[in-house]
Amino acid sequence: MKPLRIAVAGLGTVGGGVADVLLTRGRELAERAGRPLELVGVSARDRKKKRATDISHLEWATDPASLAKSDADVIVELIGGEEGVARTLVETSLAAKKHVVTANKALLAVHGAQLAALAEQNNVSLKFEAAAAGGIPIVKALRESLIAYGIDAVRGILNGTCNYILTQMEATGRTFEDVLKEAQKLGFAEADPTLDIGGGDTAHKLALLSALAFGIAPNLSNINTGGIGHITPEDIGFAHEFGYRIKLLGIARRVPGGIDQRVTAAMVRRGTPLADVEGPFNAVVADAGPAGPFFFEGRGAGEAPTASAVVADLVDIARGAFAPAFGRAANMLTKAPPPPDSRRSAFYLRFRVLDVPGVLAEIAGHLAKSDVSIESMIQRGRAPGEPVAIVMITHECSESAVSRALKVIAASDKVLGAPSMIPMEAG
Amino acid sequence: MKPLRIAVAGLGTVGGGVADVLLTRGRELAERAGRPLELVGVSARDRKKKRATDISHLEWATDPASLAKSDADVIVELIGGEEGVARTLVETSLAAKKHVVTANKALLAVHGAQLAALAEQNNVSLKFEAAAAGGIPIVKALRESLIAYGIDAVRGILNGTCNYILTQMEATGRTFEDVLKEAQKLGFAEADPTLDIGGGDTAHKLALLSALAFGIAPNLSNINTGGIGHITPEDIGFAHEFGYRIKLLGIARRVPGGIDQRVTAAMVRRGTPLADVEGPFNAVVADAGPAGPFFFEGRGAGEAPTASAVVADLVDIARGAFAPAFGRAANMLTKAPPPPDSRRSAFYLRFRVLDVPGVLAEIAGHLAKSDVSIESMIQRGRAPGEPVAIVMITHECSESAVSRALKVIAASDKVLGAPSMIPMEAG
Repeated sequence: MKPLRIAVAGLGTVGGGVADVLLTRGRELAERAGRPLELVGVSARDRKKKRATDISHLEWATDPASLAKSDADVIVELIGGEEGVARTLVETSLAAKKHVVTANKALLAVHGAQLAALAEQNNVSLKFEAAAAGGIPIVKALRESLIAYGIDAVRGILNGTCNYILTQMEATGRTFEDVLKEAQKLGFAEADPTLDIGGGDTAHKLALLSALAFGIAPNLSNINTGGIGHITPEDIGFAHEFGYRIKLLGIARRVPGGIDQRVTAAMVRRGTPLADVEGPFNAVVADAGPAGPFFFEGRGAGEAPTASAVVADLVDIARGAFAPAFGRAANMLTKAPPPPDSRRSAFYLRFRVLDVPGVLAEIAGHLAKSDVSIESMIQRGRAPGEPVAIVMITHECSESAVSRALKVIAASDKVLGAPSMIPMEAG
Repeated sequence: MKPLRIAVAGLGTVGGGVADVLLTRGRELAERAGRPLELVGVSARDRKKKRATDISHLEWATDPASLAKSDADVIVELIGGEEGVARTLVETSLAAKKHVVTANKALLAVHGAQLAALAEQNNVSLKFEAAAAGGIPIVKALRESLIAYGIDAVRGILNGTCNYILTQMEATGRTFEDVLKEAQKLGFAEADPTLDIGGGDTAHKLALLSALAFGIAPNLSNINTGGIGHITPEDIGFAHEFGYRIKLLGIARRVPGGIDQRVTAAMVRRGTPLADVEGPFNAVVADAGPAGPFFFEGRGAGEAPTASAVVADLVDIARGAFAPAFGRAANMLTKAPPPPDSRRSAFYLRFRVLDVPGVLAEIAGHLAKSDVSIESMIQRGRAPGEPVAIVMITHECSESAVSRALKVIAASDKVLGAPSMIPMEAG
């Protein structure tokens, strides 16, 4: 049978892995695909770089955009970035009726709906299993498997860097800044870690999972996004004491009036699937109505897991499997603005206060006035006149009510610094 | 677009669920499939039975085999059984160029390779996501996603009845017989539970997962199959003490010389993914070479999870997705006899012995003679001249060596009853 002709743009860790698999596991892949997968061209900055597999026989494009004019059937875009070269390559490739496989979550989170429409107009596939949760086949599961009853919620640990940092903070008791520095030294965090630790990378991935689960167009501005930079060893210690772990979660759920999407550090009860995900692993829980929760866990980044996802997309294309990028025709994707009302949740609250009579009564009074009721409380140690910590877990209440109360409480001269507030989430 | 015409044979729990989804979630499924899914005919024993959704307008076939002659494009076979009506219906449907979706693990475990070939000859799909691990999309994951690096091993909890019984035994300290009786009363176990508790059902499912993972033809006679009837509250108590849980696992792994396939009650270390799977849930770990382990968990049985898997297969067919039943052309499936050598593992051993001087030395001596070395040991209580338990965990050793040693040990007049032997497995 006619081979599927593949060109890869970007030969970093993942691109190198993809090229390697295509060149060394051809027979197995052809068995799976029913036809050969042939790597015909590559584009990367450094032609001379030493690589695991010899690629000197391949056509080399200095300008990645020129691949769109090559005779490849599929372009694999592994350049990254939501604009610039990557966007141009994907757009011109689709317009030239070439299938596109990409790991570019930023591009799809911003331009996904438009690119999906462009792919459909040109009768080609736009596939992105590698863009969310690495090797875990969650894109395919949400697009093709968990569809009979719809999805009520998707919750995931989608950023390995954050999960590594939080796991290390818990294991060592060290501060966020300390562990981040070490992670950078070990190559587990980027030199500029903002996108990871600020929650932006998780938001990109969540936008894609929400689109697949709920039929909404990816839209970052609908995602309430926070990171992990505010988490202290104290918070992690108290979480442990209450039986929880702190995880950075991407959460999208159907609520009255819309789809609530957020990226937030959250307290997750130990013993639940997401709480026990350690180090650089990723995991996703999909609540599929009466079919129940499904849990997926695996490596979320790195050469082999990500290359595995890219290759699976390529084999799908080789077999002629076609599904719209987000599981429904692009013109059916809805806008789904975030729900109007503040969401409700239970919260962990930590106050640094002067150990003087009446301080607890004052805090409790302000919370009560805002209809925030307390489920459990720890005041650790006694140090008359000195700073001590008071930690509370609230019953479910409105987020905005808690925020209002905290503002008033923070203004008290018995309360030192800004209170800490972390939502409790299902794991 | 032209609807996909579907006929369902067997309207039990699962069939009723499938009909219900097709009749009530048509719009959503059509969006996913790009064309309507139309339920056109059904066949079941009792036409009068009260059902969740009105199906009186559908064509009703008294003889399920007649559906193969209907104008349906797809036959959903939910009758069950490896021979008889189910086999005839699947064969005649495929021969009549109708796609087949089935949840019938017994049929496929026995006749899978032949039916896959028949489907290919007739250019139709044979799909069976519902046949293994219920709603968990593990069939699709092994067929389409985890393929770039091949699979080293698949390990799973594939039978909800057994997992429920073992979970209850651990929670209550009650005997296997007691808990089984209660499970039967509650409807969690069949009146004749042999297929579940004897490991046969797990073997059926494992045969399918091995075929998908390793490209071998399903073959029950290559699966070394055991059940859970021999597990005692004592074993479960000691497992707990050593930090383990006892689970019925289906395991298939690449070993030198072949694929080792077995169904066995095993000690799994607490805190590992499979050890923490509770009650009626199913779970699968797939070791995908350098892409790492992937873990999937969800409901393994029941109306909605199983119907969800059937409907996903139907939507695949409606979209025109075609993949060979076992991920490779049927004529490429290999025979893969089990490896010639006895496998190696660590083992939990429990002996009931008379508390007399020299008994431990005697047991240890026989084990040492067979090259079985001991990693840890518990002798519980002292009762001179009375029966007490000695429990050991061995280092990795040959299974046949342990069996040989146990035979000799069991013959000692200081040892009462047959020793218990449970392998330790990765979770």
